[in-house]
Amino acid sequence: MTAKKPEKPTFICGLDASLRVMSGKWKPLIMYFLYYESRRYGELKRCVQGVTHKMLIQQLKELESDGIVARKDYKEIPPRVEYSLTPLGLTLAEAFKPLCDWGEKNQSAIAAALTKRKRG
Amino acid sequence: MTAKKPEKPTFICGLDASLRVMSGKWKPLIMYFLYYESRRYGELKRCVQGVTHKMLIQQLKELESDGIVARKDYKEIPPRVEYSLTPLGLTLAEAFKPLCDWGEKNQSAIAAALTKRKRG
Repeated sequence: MTAKKPEKPTFICGLDASLRVMSGKWKPLIMYFLYYESRRYGELKRCVQGVTHKMLIQQLKELESDGIVARKDYKEIPPRVEYSLTPLGLTLAEAFKPLCDWGEKNQSAIAAALTKRKRG
Repeated sequence: MTAKKPEKPTFICGLDASLRVMSGKWKPLIMYFLYYESRRYGELKRCVQGVTHKMLIQQLKELESDGIVARKDYKEIPPRVEYSLTPLGLTLAEAFKPLCDWGEKNQSAIAAALTKRKRG
């Protein structure tokens, strides 16, 4: 008799694997804002405009559990907690860069398409 | 008196803009499978493993409305409908490539993290 092994996830392709880590409405933006520097929680929340406290904490926990984000609690009062990208998280954030450039370049076309979509 | 203009979406940054077009569980994979060739509907559905008919149609409609995917109906019986990337869609798919490579390279780390997440 052997214990049942936990099921290992399978991926359709490399992109599918990346998306499993990134998927979550706010995750790419969280990584984006941690790319250049580590940030305290409140600062990060101000950067990621529109995210709720509950949602931000949940996404940060998953990113931490996936080895993308590191959380450092300085055990101070008032509390001081800082988030940063791990070395693995940094490589993922780097892989985003072309998407940032694409969005920058096509911003007005995207805005027009989204306006049309809302009305259509 | 002036008519109220429809609200134009604003973006936090280039990445945010890209994500508005890409967001949707299956959209990046749809673009990925249309990158090398145009595909008939049934073929595309077989590629994007796990997607339902309703979901695939909805995501394709949004991608079409956003100018990323083109739909060609050959008006034949039995029906023959082909999907392909537009020139804009091609540039977006190209911006994905580093993410494909990242996922390929880190597949086992990602699988381990996801297994832990499910159990944790």
